Amino acid sequence: MAVLNATHDAQHRSFVERANLPDCDFPIQNLPFGVFSRANEPARGGVAIGDMIVDLAALARSGLLSGAALKAAEAASGPTLNPLMALGNAPSSALRARLSELLAQGSSDRQAVAACLVPMTEVAMHLPAHIGDFTDFLTSGYHSTRLNPTGKLAANFMSLPIAYHGRASSVRLDGPVRRPHVQRRDGEVVSFGPTKEMDFELELGAFIGAGNRLGDRIAIADASDAIFGHCLINDWSIRDIQRWENVPLGPFLAKSLSTTISPWVVTEEALRPFRAPAFRRAADEPAPLPYLTLKQDQDEGGLDLALTASLLTPRMREAGLAPHKVTDTNFRHMYWTFAQMVTHHASNGCNLQPGDLLGSGTISGPTPGSRACLAELTVRGKEPLHLPNGETRPWLEDGDEVIFAARASRQGYVSIGFGNCRGTVQAAL
Amino acid sequence: MAVLNATHDAQHRSFVERANLPDCDFPIQNLPFGVFSRANEPARGGVAIGDMIVDLAALARSGLLSGAALKAAEAASGPTLNPLMALGNAPSSALRARLSELLAQGSSDRQAVAACLVPMTEVAMHLPAHIGDFTDFLTSGYHSTRLNPTGKLAANFMSLPIAYHGRASSVRLDGPVRRPHVQRRDGEVVSFGPTKEMDFELELGAFIGAGNRLGDRIAIADASDAIFGHCLINDWSIRDIQRWENVPLGPFLAKSLSTTISPWVVTEEALRPFRAPAFRRAADEPAPLPYLTLKQDQDEGGLDLALTASLLTPRMREAGLAPHKVTDTNFRHMYWTFAQMVTHHASNGCNLQPGDLLGSGTISGPTPGSRACLAELTVRGKEPLHLPNGETRPWLEDGDEVIFAARASRQGYVSIGFGNCRGTVQAAL
Repeated sequence: MAVLNATHDAQHRSFVERANLPDCDFPIQNLPFGVFSRANEPARGGVAIGDMIVDLAALARSGLLSGAALKAAEAASGPTLNPLMALGNAPSSALRARLSELLAQGSSDRQAVAACLVPMTEVAMHLPAHIGDFTDFLTSGYHSTRLNPTGKLAANFMSLPIAYHGRASSVRLDGPVRRPHVQRRDGEVVSFGPTKEMDFELELGAFIGAGNRLGDRIAIADASDAIFGHCLINDWSIRDIQRWENVPLGPFLAKSLSTTISPWVVTEEALRPFRAPAFRRAADEPAPLPYLTLKQDQDEGGLDLALTASLLTPRMREAGLAPHKVTDTNFRHMYWTFAQMVTHHASNGCNLQPGDLLGSGTISGPTPGSRACLAELTVRGKEPLHLPNGETRPWLEDGDEVIFAARASRQGYVSIGFGNCRGTVQAAL
Repeated sequence: MAVLNATHDAQHRSFVERANLPDCDFPIQNLPFGVFSRANEPARGGVAIGDMIVDLAALARSGLLSGAALKAAEAASGPTLNPLMALGNAPSSALRARLSELLAQGSSDRQAVAACLVPMTEVAMHLPAHIGDFTDFLTSGYHSTRLNPTGKLAANFMSLPIAYHGRASSVRLDGPVRRPHVQRRDGEVVSFGPTKEMDFELELGAFIGAGNRLGDRIAIADASDAIFGHCLINDWSIRDIQRWENVPLGPFLAKSLSTTISPWVVTEEALRPFRAPAFRRAADEPAPLPYLTLKQDQDEGGLDLALTASLLTPRMREAGLAPHKVTDTNFRHMYWTFAQMVTHHASNGCNLQPGDLLGSGTISGPTPGSRACLAELTVRGKEPLHLPNGETRPWLEDGDEVIFAARASRQGYVSIGFGNCRGTVQAAL
């Protein structure tokens, strides 16, 4: 099992009371990183605890830190976490250990730490990093099979983690997502107008830490440590243009309209108690090649993370109804581990840089309820979703809000979450 | 015809004598932008003239500039041209006009200007911009047809400029390019090792100027002005993994190993005398949709730019032989204009940012000699190239240097060039 330490102790509690409630995404065992700002102040790094944020710039000046923990807080004092990510994971781990002490119930430094806390309600969140490159993988065999005309796993899917380069400029946090105009073909008629087939895809993201130099590779043994942490991703997808543009170079405008991510980056270290064996392949499926194979990765490269997607329509909102859960899935369904994705990505010498974002691809599982996009849930629009208030949805409509959440839980450990990833479809221009 | 001005005057000469030689890529009519540094000095923007560079940081301090020209030079005084590109094209046009006076034979400011000149032999060149996103198109119908198993133009190729998101982190200037390890399949055997099918692709790049906000589009009438300027691109391509990984999400590791670009950015304004009608479609091919159609773009959205690719092998180098030209093509063969590429790219609201790079795709023409990559030239390795010294090449070998050049010429105008784009294949690690 991945190395655990005092920061994972289930008995540990914080003096920030909200952090100790069982449904809180940000207990003292989580301590995710993000970037926030208060009105008229510059954006800077912070760590979530309950309903508060530790201002890392203030903490760095407080005299409460030293050594690697101080170095990490100083690197996180600017408007992006790229300098922190570039240090590799040891300094942020030292900061996590120190924060675990400072934020504890009975902390002797409580008053000084409290002076560095900012209520979440008073801040605006920002992208955690400048994303140099965004790469999106396709690593759920269930998703791949359902959308493959053959209904089978492709030979290359079983041999390498399939991926495409995504668009970095349009990655955003929570907010409105404009329905795009697209070119599409209906029968023999090609036209340009607002898409009729707007979809979401529920994914998990990984931010790269120190990265590798151009021409070097990342061994599978080093790949897990090359990841700084994780966020949720809504890979908004436009199915009509995707069908039309996809051959031979893959998705382009079907994906570049916008990508929504959640603001908090949950570290590899916070997720250690929830590691799980990698996906178990069927007996007739090929074993990965040696460069993608490591016993430790097979034993614990998976992640037991429950993820949900919910939908809130304008009529549901007006009626005061709660969002309706349409997807309930788990990251354990993924055919490839993030370590394998990282190693494969750098296997040709491609340089991964601090703050680069990798998406897992749609996290669909084997059951109907674990289908993680509308193209699967509605069989490409042919079997519309039925919502509790009688509405139906083959695809997203204007005003629909898509809400993702994720929780990692395990007997004997405090459950942690990711906060929300939310986006609302805006009418086309 | 695109608006010409005094900077295009064929009679105009510079006091930098090298700039007046007929084979010089950088006469006073060109004035491309780049980023250079001298030993122990910070990188900054410059303009090429003959065998010299105008140091724009020094020029901005010289008192020789005012107004928009000064603003442009100041924006170009840092380590990337992104701030200059973000201004849109009017300030750089004002700077071009002023430089055209200052560098002229008989310039009254010759002495002051000469103090801002740096010999090219004394500098290192750097990437002209921080490239936020790199997008690579597929816009030669000849390239597309030769590599399409059907041997025909695909329906979507004729309706939209096909493209994929490329990898921005591995874009580099001239230099060595390491032969990558890749996963590939030979028959039923899947393996991992140094590629056996390394290729080049000769392309023209376009750097985005001011760009557009997320959710906005760029009308075809504004698209040409959205481009700051052009460079040469070698889109190194690895054919064995490309075949294996390409379906369903397009090229990934086949392209991300590295992309080589030339250091000088030739502006839209410098290229105006060489505009040409857009590609003439066959009678049975569909007209572009209205959002991609503009009479001015049809009349002069093309570019009469001759491009060559040459090969220098280690044995040729030892024997003192000159590089052997393997491709002689022209940008007029391209099915789509850059304005159409820009408009289509932003048609879904995707934000293009200053310094983003678009690649045209392989610039192959109709004749055998105008095939612009080895996959075409050697029919996927089956008909190796024959070099003058008796060597053959189905694909690139270690030590092979690939050299691109381009010249725009037209009766009555001074011909301008792009400098070289060079890369040498290094042995695998």
